[in-house]
Amino acid sequence: MTVSALDHPYLKDLLGHDEVATFFSVEEDITAMIAFERALAKVEAEEGVISTDARDAIFQALDNYSLDITGLRVATARDGVVVPELLRQVKEKLALKFHSALHFGATSQDIIDTSLSLRLCRASKVIETDLTGLIEDLEQLSRKFGDHQIIGRTRMQRALPIPLKHRLDSWSNPLKELLSQFTVVRKKVSVLQFAGAVGTLENLGESAEQVRAKLAAELNLLDSKGSWHTNRRGLVSFANWLSELSGSIGKLGQDVIQMSINEVHEVYLNGGGGSSAMPHKQNPVRGEVLVSLARFNAMNVSGMHQALVHENERSGSSWTLEWMILPQMVVAGAASVRRARELLSQIEDIPDMTEIVSE
Amino acid sequence: MTVSALDHPYLKDLLGHDEVATFFSVEEDITAMIAFERALAKVEAEEGVISTDARDAIFQALDNYSLDITGLRVATARDGVVVPELLRQVKEKLALKFHSALHFGATSQDIIDTSLSLRLCRASKVIETDLTGLIEDLEQLSRKFGDHQIIGRTRMQRALPIPLKHRLDSWSNPLKELLSQFTVVRKKVSVLQFAGAVGTLENLGESAEQVRAKLAAELNLLDSKGSWHTNRRGLVSFANWLSELSGSIGKLGQDVIQMSINEVHEVYLNGGGGSSAMPHKQNPVRGEVLVSLARFNAMNVSGMHQALVHENERSGSSWTLEWMILPQMVVAGAASVRRARELLSQIEDIPDMTEIVSE
Amino acid sequence: MTVSALDHPYLKDLLGHDEVATFFSVEEDITAMIAFERALAKVEAEEGVISTDARDAIFQALDNYSLDITGLRVATARDGVVVPELLRQVKEKLALKFHSALHFGATSQDIIDTSLSLRLCRASKVIETDLTGLIEDLEQLSRKFGDHQIIGRTRMQRALPIPLKHRLDSWSNPLKELLSQFTVVRKKVSVLQFAGAVGTLENLGESAEQVRAKLAAELNLLDSKGSWHTNRRGLVSFANWLSELSGSIGKLGQDVIQMSINEVHEVYLNGGGGSSAMPHKQNPVRGEVLVSLARFNAMNVSGMHQALVHENERSGSSWTLEWMILPQMVVAGAASVRRARELLSQIEDIPDMTEIVSE
Amino acid sequence: MTVSALDHPYLKDLLGHDEVATFFSVEEDITAMIAFERALAKVEAEEGVISTDARDAIFQALDNYSLDITGLRVATARDGVVVPELLRQVKEKLALKFHSALHFGATSQDIIDTSLSLRLCRASKVIETDLTGLIEDLEQLSRKFGDHQIIGRTRMQRALPIPLKHRLDSWSNPLKELLSQFTVVRKKVSVLQFAGAVGTLENLGESAEQVRAKLAAELNLLDSKGSWHTNRRGLVSFANWLSELSGSIGKLGQDVIQMSINEVHEVYLNGGGGSSAMPHKQNPVRGEVLVSLARFNAMNVSGMHQALVHENERSGSSWTLEWMILPQMVVAGAASVRRARELLSQIEDIPDMTEIVSE
Repeated sequence: MTVSALDHPYLKDLLGHDEVATFFSVEEDITAMIAFERALAKVEAEEGVISTDARDAIFQALDNYSLDITGLRVATARDGVVVPELLRQVKEKLALKFHSALHFGATSQDIIDTSLSLRLCRASKVIETDLTGLIEDLEQLSRKFGDHQIIGRTRMQRALPIPLKHRLDSWSNPLKELLSQFTVVRKKVSVLQFAGAVGTLENLGESAEQVRAKLAAELNLLDSKGSWHTNRRGLVSFANWLSELSGSIGKLGQDVIQMSINEVHEVYLNGGGGSSAMPHKQNPVRGEVLVSLARFNAMNVSGMHQALVHENERSGSSWTLEWMILPQMVVAGAASVRRARELLSQIEDIPDMTEIVSE
Repeated sequence: MTVSALDHPYLKDLLGHDEVATFFSVEEDITAMIAFERALAKVEAEEGVISTDARDAIFQALDNYSLDITGLRVATARDGVVVPELLRQVKEKLALKFHSALHFGATSQDIIDTSLSLRLCRASKVIETDLTGLIEDLEQLSRKFGDHQIIGRTRMQRALPIPLKHRLDSWSNPLKELLSQFTVVRKKVSVLQFAGAVGTLENLGESAEQVRAKLAAELNLLDSKGSWHTNRRGLVSFANWLSELSGSIGKLGQDVIQMSINEVHEVYLNGGGGSSAMPHKQNPVRGEVLVSLARFNAMNVSGMHQALVHENERSGSSWTLEWMILPQMVVAGAASVRRARELLSQIEDIPDMTEIVSE
Repeated sequence: MTVSALDHPYLKDLLGHDEVATFFSVEEDITAMIAFERALAKVEAEEGVISTDARDAIFQALDNYSLDITGLRVATARDGVVVPELLRQVKEKLALKFHSALHFGATSQDIIDTSLSLRLCRASKVIETDLTGLIEDLEQLSRKFGDHQIIGRTRMQRALPIPLKHRLDSWSNPLKELLSQFTVVRKKVSVLQFAGAVGTLENLGESAEQVRAKLAAELNLLDSKGSWHTNRRGLVSFANWLSELSGSIGKLGQDVIQMSINEVHEVYLNGGGGSSAMPHKQNPVRGEVLVSLARFNAMNVSGMHQALVHENERSGSSWTLEWMILPQMVVAGAASVRRARELLSQIEDIPDMTEIVSE
Repeated sequence: MTVSALDHPYLKDLLGHDEVATFFSVEEDITAMIAFERALAKVEAEEGVISTDARDAIFQALDNYSLDITGLRVATARDGVVVPELLRQVKEKLALKFHSALHFGATSQDIIDTSLSLRLCRASKVIETDLTGLIEDLEQLSRKFGDHQIIGRTRMQRALPIPLKHRLDSWSNPLKELLSQFTVVRKKVSVLQFAGAVGTLENLGESAEQVRAKLAAELNLLDSKGSWHTNRRGLVSFANWLSELSGSIGKLGQDVIQMSINEVHEVYLNGGGGSSAMPHKQNPVRGEVLVSLARFNAMNVSGMHQALVHENERSGSSWTLEWMILPQMVVAGAASVRRARELLSQIEDIPDMTEIVSE
């Protein structure tokens, strides 16, 4: 099924990013959720919250349960979350006496949010690598053509000559800033969620802080030192960053489109897009797509901010809204970096206009 | 792959609508595009624009070509549209002398937009049926409990008693209006696109009007009497309607949530959502989801309006942006109707508060 | 104070529309609210709901009360609506025995919504006249230059020659459609609100329908035949229309900008915008502004759809949200029509490119 | 004129923030622009870029020119920016030989952006003080009632008891984070813009860096070390922060609304909003307004991100779009802090539910 253009069989190399999309597959999600339960059992046994027998039984059940996706789907439609049914499936392989030890002290939001954190960490690495590559591509372009003179344009009119380097800097500077800020932004979504039914870890008594700290370490995540069940600013910061990323790259795309207008012809692209009616045309397809992705994320960021109005100790409405928006922002952001690199690789020449501009 | 929660293996019965999602599958899309080419060849042969030999050869090629999805994906990343490669695959089964007769006079946007129209028509029927059912459900509820007194509330405070019928009317009246307006709105997206490379059907000469009219009839679509390559208001009207639909249903969802607050307890739901930490809870999951879907479409509608700025005779950026937004709006709109029906079916009682309200 | 660029002392001729902005002044708002109370008293006296003595006393109080804006502001911050304090000010000139006859059966939302309806009616007339003028301007342009050949462009690349008329039709066709649909859309906001505290006109007993019908007639508005306290689709339809209007005009603006690129030079504008650093430049300022206004309304329309989730019998949150958004959409929509007319009047020539395109 | 509810004569104490709104008045804007020109002349004379005679003459002209707002309005409609006409008015008091020394090397965007920076700095101080106060208010509330038990609620259903402190922390923690991050965010908009016609300070030769550094110091702004004509991420970061602020406070507002439902009655407010039809009601008006402001800014943030697609060396369309959006975001953000403080001051009691929750 292909409601989303971002993971659509024939559109996904135009609009998506396969590697990053994988992190939003059910397989990766369930693997991460099972990893959460395993780590929780391990740490709770260490802290004497559950018995080591319980831990061992849980490990075995997590290794051997039969995943029933249809069952998950049916139950999720009823429960609003996948977790109760997933645990029920695991418990089928777990002796009754250990049932209460599984997922002890945790709530559905803990495991779902943590699964997201684990996968955003991995997606972030891919995006960071791509972005570093894009910045290098731009530096290479600058070394190649940076001292060419082009015509600076303001308000869509010819203004004064500028070195191409100045235009290229206007593309790469925001990206360098975004890359350097990503260290902070990534951390905001690399955070364990473990807070229990109402955010107070009420079942863990005095072990609460210790279990949470060790669980975070076990999962290679940061310890939130409390609940972020309703404080969704980490995810919103990530969404802001993604939209600033695709927005900044959208400027690059728009510029290349404008430079490739036939009469302007400041850039020579190879391998432009073909047309079914006019085979001679060379359309600056990837430039256009960069603008589409920028506008798509600029729209989506609004929904993430709407979801900040998160009532009481857990808002089903706002939380569910995030699920519909954030994954597509991550993939669109990643795609815009990848498409930009492809676009730059198509640039054959940006001719020196010194003679023309000195007219 | 499951970037979109709307067609996600375990979320889709919570947030999606399987039947409607099918219309956005690649299979349905390609089937519709092939139908376009077939109808075009048929009509153009009738009008003497292409030969009957060409038509027969085209029919045979369309029946026998080997669909290569990987090829489509690779080419779409380059061309920005699937059509040139799809035609190339068809032409492999077509004698060279007939190549120019295939897709004669048409452009990629003609076939892609028309494929969308064909599928939106079918999705509309499903949505209309569901919406009619939802309105009937509300009428049934009104017959059952409509004369019960409940407490009218304004600005979240108890105001004065009202008959439940008044509240139910505030749910069903917007839906009745939307259903009655759908006749017009549906027509706006049941329109053939056939305008050629730059919107003037320049290759068809004096046959242009006739071919277009007959092609529309052949495909059971309306004749646009011109190009809508850049006039995207039909799609925007459809998007508006979808967001008004999920928004109006979001009000219903929010009301049911408020009525199900434990202390208020104006509605008794069965089969509410379970919780992993607190199995006793009955969460009004579908009510919450209705609010999420409403906010999701209210966000998306903005992107469709942004895409109205559609430069020149075809804007790659704006057109591509539609592809990322409209399908998910259709599925979210359809899902909100379906989820509302499920929610209403969970209502066991809305007790008469006459004694309480007359305190 | 000038938080809004649309009624800013030096930006308003660039971004606003003075005549339409006037309808959102406090003066016009209060005049409309007083007209509502007068009409209500008149009709209720006719129907025997209040005495003719009460009516006469109310008329006199409405003529003679001392408007205290500071008092309104202080009270509105407390009450969330201006009405209780406005009525208190009127009651200072009204004998105590008639106090209960003033505003009898009405609620704050009735008078505030109706005041908006009255003013949107008047704004609609101005917009309709301007839009009719814009369409005529385009027809005149078409008569002047329509048979010139220009270069059709798709995906930002030269495609095939088209007659300018085709491009101009792509500007005027959506506007003609919008004008023709405006008859329906205008009616949706030309509707009386009169429904009482919880939407049931509970205080008017059997006279309710009659009073509402006569009140509508008295105010030259349509009778809603019920409450639209929570059914805000009329306002949303108006917002959709405004954003489709500025969006369609944004396309025109974007096209003119592209045509005025120096190397392209398909359009000759006089009186372009000056620059502080480069006095020789002629910036296509109004074209750019048309794009800004389009994107502004495309953003705002999202907020109006968010406000559809309107809980219970009156949602303070959603209703207040409309107040922040709709006025600026109306003025931005009106401004885009006005600016487009000004832009067209700057067009000196769109040269015939026949020789160039036949190269 | 009152298109904007945020500076509307009777709505502004409900929805606006007078002190912060002042920074967007024409007076403050022009004062800041004149300060820019004065500082520029001072620094350029120091650096020998203009003569000291020119500087003195410019100082005198800036002190004595006759501001003609009507002239500014008319010219801005033509030029798209106020600067050329403002300079023309100043030049009326300046000997012809010094005309070229005024505004030397600068462009309209330099002065307009810098004026905005200067005023955002001042607005930031007010917001920071208010936000600090709000956090203190919450701490005081926590000291007063923090150990009371209330009922934790998830997905709108009673879950488990929590100390009120936990709920209050969920309100104040995001605000504390936002306050601590504001140090960085404020700096991003406390930046001089001085880059010349196309962003390269081409007229200043070797003095460019030095003049820019000194000009920044003179105006108490940071030196951008280059142009941010097209890199608008500083403003977007500020917009993100404002929307996260009003969004986080919207959660507080929504919670108070839910706690004040009659049957729930977890909070006792004094001085709630009155109703024209039901004088006995106490509406949680400020709670509702907090939700409206949150949704308003969540919508607006989308437009700021759309404006990131900023083509070439200056985009009239994107830049102008910022003018319509950012001021209202600043005022709405500031208003949400102020309104939250007022709301908290209305809280008379949040009773201990220990007995009830232990049922």
